[in-house]
Amino acid sequence: MQNVKTYILLFMFIAIGNWAHSQSHPKLILTQKGVKEIRAQIDQLPLMQSSLDKARAFVDQEMAKGIDVPVPKDMAGGYTHNRHKKNYMLMQKAGVLFQITQEEKYALFVRDMLLEYAKMYPTLDVHPVKRSYAPGKIFWQNLNDANWLVYTSQAYDCVYDFLSAKERKTLEKDLFRPFADHLSVDSPQFYNRVHNHSTWGNAAVGMIGFVMNDQELIDRAFYGLKSDNIKEDQKDNDGGLIKMQGDGKAGFFAQLDHLFSPDGYYTEGPYYQRYAMYPFVMFAEAIENCRPDVKIFEYRDSLLVKAVQTLLNLTDVNGLFFPINDAQKGMSYLSRELVSSVNIVYHFGGEDPGLLSVAEKQGEVMLDDTGLSVAKAIKEGKQRAYQKKSANYGDGASGEEGALGILRAGKADAELCLVMKNSSQGMGHGHFDKLSFSLYDNKGEVLQDYGAARFVNIEQKFGGGYLKENKSWAKQTVAHNTLVVDRISHFKGSTDTGNKYHSEPYLFDAGNEQIQIVSAKERNAYPGTEMHRTLALISDDKFEKPLVLDVFKVKSDEEKQLELPYHFFGQIISTNCEYQVAEPLTKMGDAYGYQHLRLEAEGLTDEGSAKLSWFVNDRFYSITSAVNSEDKLLLVRSGAEDPNFNLRRDPAFIVQKNQQKEAVFVTLIESHGKYDRVTEFADNAFSSISQVELLLNSDDYTAVSFEDKKNNKWMLILANRDAGKKSKHQLRINKTDYEWTGAYHYVPAQ
Amino acid sequence: MQNVKTYILLFMFIAIGNWAHSQSHPKLILTQKGVKEIRAQIDQLPLMQSSLDKARAFVDQEMAKGIDVPVPKDMAGGYTHNRHKKNYMLMQKAGVLFQITQEEKYALFVRDMLLEYAKMYPTLDVHPVKRSYAPGKIFWQNLNDANWLVYTSQAYDCVYDFLSAKERKTLEKDLFRPFADHLSVDSPQFYNRVHNHSTWGNAAVGMIGFVMNDQELIDRAFYGLKSDNIKEDQKDNDGGLIKMQGDGKAGFFAQLDHLFSPDGYYTEGPYYQRYAMYPFVMFAEAIENCRPDVKIFEYRDSLLVKAVQTLLNLTDVNGLFFPINDAQKGMSYLSRELVSSVNIVYHFGGEDPGLLSVAEKQGEVMLDDTGLSVAKAIKEGKQRAYQKKSANYGDGASGEEGALGILRAGKADAELCLVMKNSSQGMGHGHFDKLSFSLYDNKGEVLQDYGAARFVNIEQKFGGGYLKENKSWAKQTVAHNTLVVDRISHFKGSTDTGNKYHSEPYLFDAGNEQIQIVSAKERNAYPGTEMHRTLALISDDKFEKPLVLDVFKVKSDEEKQLELPYHFFGQIISTNCEYQVAEPLTKMGDAYGYQHLRLEAEGLTDEGSAKLSWFVNDRFYSITSAVNSEDKLLLVRSGAEDPNFNLRRDPAFIVQKNQQKEAVFVTLIESHGKYDRVTEFADNAFSSISQVELLLNSDDYTAVSFEDKKNNKWMLILANRDAGKKSKHQLRINKTDYEWTGAYHYVPAQ
Ligand SMILES: [Ca+2]
Ligand SMILES: [Ca+2]
Ligand SMILES: [Ca+2]
Ligand SMILES: [Mg+2]
Ligand SMILES: [Mg+2]
Ligand SMILES: [Mg+2]
Ligand SMILES: [Mg+2]
Repeated sequence: MQNVKTYILLFMFIAIGNWAHSQSHPKLILTQKGVKEIRAQIDQLPLMQSSLDKARAFVDQEMAKGIDVPVPKDMAGGYTHNRHKKNYMLMQKAGVLFQITQEEKYALFVRDMLLEYAKMYPTLDVHPVKRSYAPGKIFWQNLNDANWLVYTSQAYDCVYDFLSAKERKTLEKDLFRPFADHLSVDSPQFYNRVHNHSTWGNAAVGMIGFVMNDQELIDRAFYGLKSDNIKEDQKDNDGGLIKMQGDGKAGFFAQLDHLFSPDGYYTEGPYYQRYAMYPFVMFAEAIENCRPDVKIFEYRDSLLVKAVQTLLNLTDVNGLFFPINDAQKGMSYLSRELVSSVNIVYHFGGEDPGLLSVAEKQGEVMLDDTGLSVAKAIKEGKQRAYQKKSANYGDGASGEEGALGILRAGKADAELCLVMKNSSQGMGHGHFDKLSFSLYDNKGEVLQDYGAARFVNIEQKFGGGYLKENKSWAKQTVAHNTLVVDRISHFKGSTDTGNKYHSEPYLFDAGNEQIQIVSAKERNAYPGTEMHRTLALISDDKFEKPLVLDVFKVKSDEEKQLELPYHFFGQIISTNCEYQVAEPLTKMGDAYGYQHLRLEAEGLTDEGSAKLSWFVNDRFYSITSAVNSEDKLLLVRSGAEDPNFNLRRDPAFIVQKNQQKEAVFVTLIESHGKYDRVTEFADNAFSSISQVELLLNSDDYTAVSFEDKKNNKWMLILANRDAGKKSKHQLRINKTDYEWTGAYHYVPAQ
Repeated sequence: MQNVKTYILLFMFIAIGNWAHSQSHPKLILTQKGVKEIRAQIDQLPLMQSSLDKARAFVDQEMAKGIDVPVPKDMAGGYTHNRHKKNYMLMQKAGVLFQITQEEKYALFVRDMLLEYAKMYPTLDVHPVKRSYAPGKIFWQNLNDANWLVYTSQAYDCVYDFLSAKERKTLEKDLFRPFADHLSVDSPQFYNRVHNHSTWGNAAVGMIGFVMNDQELIDRAFYGLKSDNIKEDQKDNDGGLIKMQGDGKAGFFAQLDHLFSPDGYYTEGPYYQRYAMYPFVMFAEAIENCRPDVKIFEYRDSLLVKAVQTLLNLTDVNGLFFPINDAQKGMSYLSRELVSSVNIVYHFGGEDPGLLSVAEKQGEVMLDDTGLSVAKAIKEGKQRAYQKKSANYGDGASGEEGALGILRAGKADAELCLVMKNSSQGMGHGHFDKLSFSLYDNKGEVLQDYGAARFVNIEQKFGGGYLKENKSWAKQTVAHNTLVVDRISHFKGSTDTGNKYHSEPYLFDAGNEQIQIVSAKERNAYPGTEMHRTLALISDDKFEKPLVLDVFKVKSDEEKQLELPYHFFGQIISTNCEYQVAEPLTKMGDAYGYQHLRLEAEGLTDEGSAKLSWFVNDRFYSITSAVNSEDKLLLVRSGAEDPNFNLRRDPAFIVQKNQQKEAVFVTLIESHGKYDRVTEFADNAFSSISQVELLLNSDDYTAVSFEDKKNNKWMLILANRDAGKKSKHQLRINKTDYEWTGAYHYVPAQ
């Protein structure tokens, strides 16, 4: 079916391949109509005017310093790398400034710099730093060269009509055509795969193809190379297989078909999705402008629109991306890539007024037709609050390789959001975090995913690259809020094995205001062990904020040690456990992340429920977990075996059950109260929960309850093997019969 | 001289003692004139209107629940404690609401609650919790009873004319008079001393005295009890001697004469000064209203005005008080006490427009004549930015018991502020932190004082009281940025010894924009060891922000181990030391705070300067310290021997010099650069300093230099024994002769 669609498209392009020939420039991102409108309206549009002023300030300052096109030499972070990066940003902005201000100096600057590149490029071999699976010529890796061309093709488009035919000929012959060839035919391992790197390559080749009106390049961008010689086991620098996805397809349509799930979820997670979005939305805008007949924004059921909306929903209250997989914390929808994405999807994707409030927070618009739409709509007051929602995003090209579940409840101060990773591994940047979750409130992180161990672009820290501890700690299972069996990570820490499997979503129901629920199973992370976790976000007037109920069921072939960590922040306020503090502190293990943990205290309780309360950001939080008197409670902290002080010293609370073939962890998490450091008044500083209990556990059913200090009692029964909405169940628990329809039965307190 | 003044005042009061008799109420804090003006203008004054609305919302909500005057039973944090505290707040506000809104319901509420108290009070013995050196009847300590009366006398004043003569008689006979007597004649150990507790007592007795027009109580408030039987060695709950200050004087004027230095500095430090200010400014307002002839705001060279201005200058960029001595971090000029102080000092103390911008940040005004002035002035746009400044505040009643030095330089992003404690111990809440400093930038703390180990009013943490670790860690020398000799705290950790001495300020010069300097000596903290520290804040265009140069000279009778800690935050980025990480982690000692520290790494360097760079709040900081190849560099962290997890896990960098009779620590501190997590761009992430050197050290002179990576060199020469501004010096260093006038000679790079 996909093939048929592709051939139809191919036919259409051949048929109409030349109609753009007579068009004038700019036509790629800026259009002639757009330039005219922007010029007429910009002084009435503060957001666009300030974006222009910012671009002008940057370009003017740099133009004053003169042009520098150094011979490529340095690795990322070094001078020539940074200079060439700045050059393409400058050229792109200068091109736009030329069109909008019509000041010739900007066109001259672009022209002169391009001619410098055209002079140098034919003299270049591949980059002298030989560390990439696909080296560039300007940069150490082709990925950066592709970045260069994506930006520079926009600059070329803006000055195209300004240049003489002779200048254009020089540039195309000596620079752009060989540049595009190096990215593609000369680097099939980079270009001819389904991967975000290749997307940059496809977009670069396609965008310059449009500007040059070179149909061969456009076809190459859309459908890839006709042949390559990539070996089956060839890998990239992240250890990812080159030939993995796409059934041998390549090119931009293959990326659209395979890199996103039907829900617009990108398997590497939001941090990388953010990075990947830019070539997608920019090339799509170029296609829409140059080939509107393709209807690219409608392609695959409006995939690109969905991808941006999904990405915006993958953020916490501050717009920070959920840091699953390799992700540096702090990256947010304020990033450059998201400015483009939001503008383009607003303009071409149905003008959702919620996007305008995100654009307002971004405080910047693109200097093109899409930014104009956004600036005008905001000026007209069309913006509405962006509504984030509960959602279950299918993973994988088919949407059937697991899912990422998000539950949201509560308003304002009471806002709570839970993210559960029931998806596939996430490729080379994936973490061993099956069924893990993280928790956010209206200030930000409460129970964290550590994120990546990396200081991006901070040279002192391994040149800004991934630190050794990223693999030895951040990726490991114990660095996540999920079960560790026998102190070994999921898939024994093998990415190749992890890439073969995905968790199985069992249940997702966000339709009930009282209880929203997400549930999934995992059978492959530990062969012989089945894990089934259910997380519920419960809203009840008897509590200040929603509660999280966590039911983690495990069944194994043999007796195992089971450890379930909760990674919190801040200071411990109280616990009901009797514990011994460790002295001295030693590392807890030698592998799978335990070498980076120190045990600070170990305790037991015979109260049936272990409770830990802590204090951070002037708020209180409590975890109450059903335990028996043999279960151990561990207080641990990261930072062992960390000679370069690369890791944060963050605490975690681990519930440990020993020698179990079958066990259920039942845990309730409260966010409660607050402290005012000025009035020194503590409000609701105590947990409201007196008891959490496992009532029943069988292969078919698991029933749990919790009780508050006023003896109100809540119960949840889960059907473990039949999530059918219409399935009827009945069960006797403590001499009471329960009957219900559907996968779960929730009995709130009266 | 003080005595003469006191007698003159006393005579004046006797002479005119009765003139207020015919005045109507309110007259204490609110005045009849004030009420009239507030009623006429409040709807034009947003800040006053919102303050009224807030008070009304609070009182209405609580009035709806009815009156509860429980029999006293609980300790701080318990129900009866909190209820009685809420009651006095409610009565005070209800009284004000009655006056401003003239709604009778508020007067009735105050009347009915007061009559409940009048019914109960005669039946009460002292409070059943016998833990205070001076128990109250309503609360466990008289301090809280005094709080009650300070607030309630305002309420009584507001409803005085509303009540029948019979009601007034009942209240005065059964409640107010015996209440005032219990605070004073029945509790001389509480009332008749120079202390913030007694100030509350004096104010309480004086304020109810004014309302009741009871001259005996007014005299008792002004001058204390004529006789007491306090023993010389009697102590309060904080271990403070009852008879310590004031030469046997007591009463409000004795507090004014002895609790503050002439600069308005309060020896316990700003956290306690904030708490102490309320009875001072409120009683002063009452005195000004009822006895304007006293000219209380002019008393002692306008001491109260100075005290408030000094307190406001003892804050960081966020208005947070410098947490020297026992102080919970987070307390700021937004506190209730500072709202009163700022309003009262604005109105009665010269209408400084800078105070208005503080009032705006507070977002609230007093509902009285002073709040009216502030709200009107803000409405008229008179507010100016509050100008914080460099200052050297003398400590002690005479201003000659050491000083607290503050240096400020840089604007906006480049703002830097340094606080050096060269004062006296600070009484029972004092820390062993002679010559310690802390550093702040435009975001807040950079090099911290730990503050107190306490969670005020968080019941789970030892009832909200001072934790054991406050004494064993927070007070100890090693918890501060100052020198520890032989791992023993100053004065061997004895508060009584510490109270006998103060450091000797040597030099303070904030008059030079290029270099501001504070210098002090300490000879008593370690008998036989002289310490002389000089801190300079250097502004130079060659650096992004001001630099801190720290020259710490030590001379001892015998060889000592010298350790100088710098308590930073965040993650280590790099160091030039060759270090071994410790494994396992053990506590560093058994006493003086070292039992709470773990050594994480220990290193050496033969580069002449040891450097540590770290990263916090997305900024970079570096310390460079002149060392020889035997000096050790320690990376440590707090948290050992902390079974209740009462301490934060904060890091410190310690420069250790061993077996030294004489040594100089020369250290340069840079705040540089920033990191943007959205663009992932690191700016100025590297220290600019290549070398820090000790050029010369003798009893008379110390000369140091530092150099940047471009080989620019700066030099500072200090005359160690003659700080005379006009003294002439000459010195040969490395074959160059230097001549200068004054205590120091600064030679910046060309
Ligand atoms: Ca019960
Ligand atoms: Ca010794
Ligand atoms: Ca040099
Ligand atoms: Mg990658
Ligand atoms: Mg992770
Ligand atoms: Mg005290
Ligand atoms: Mg301290």
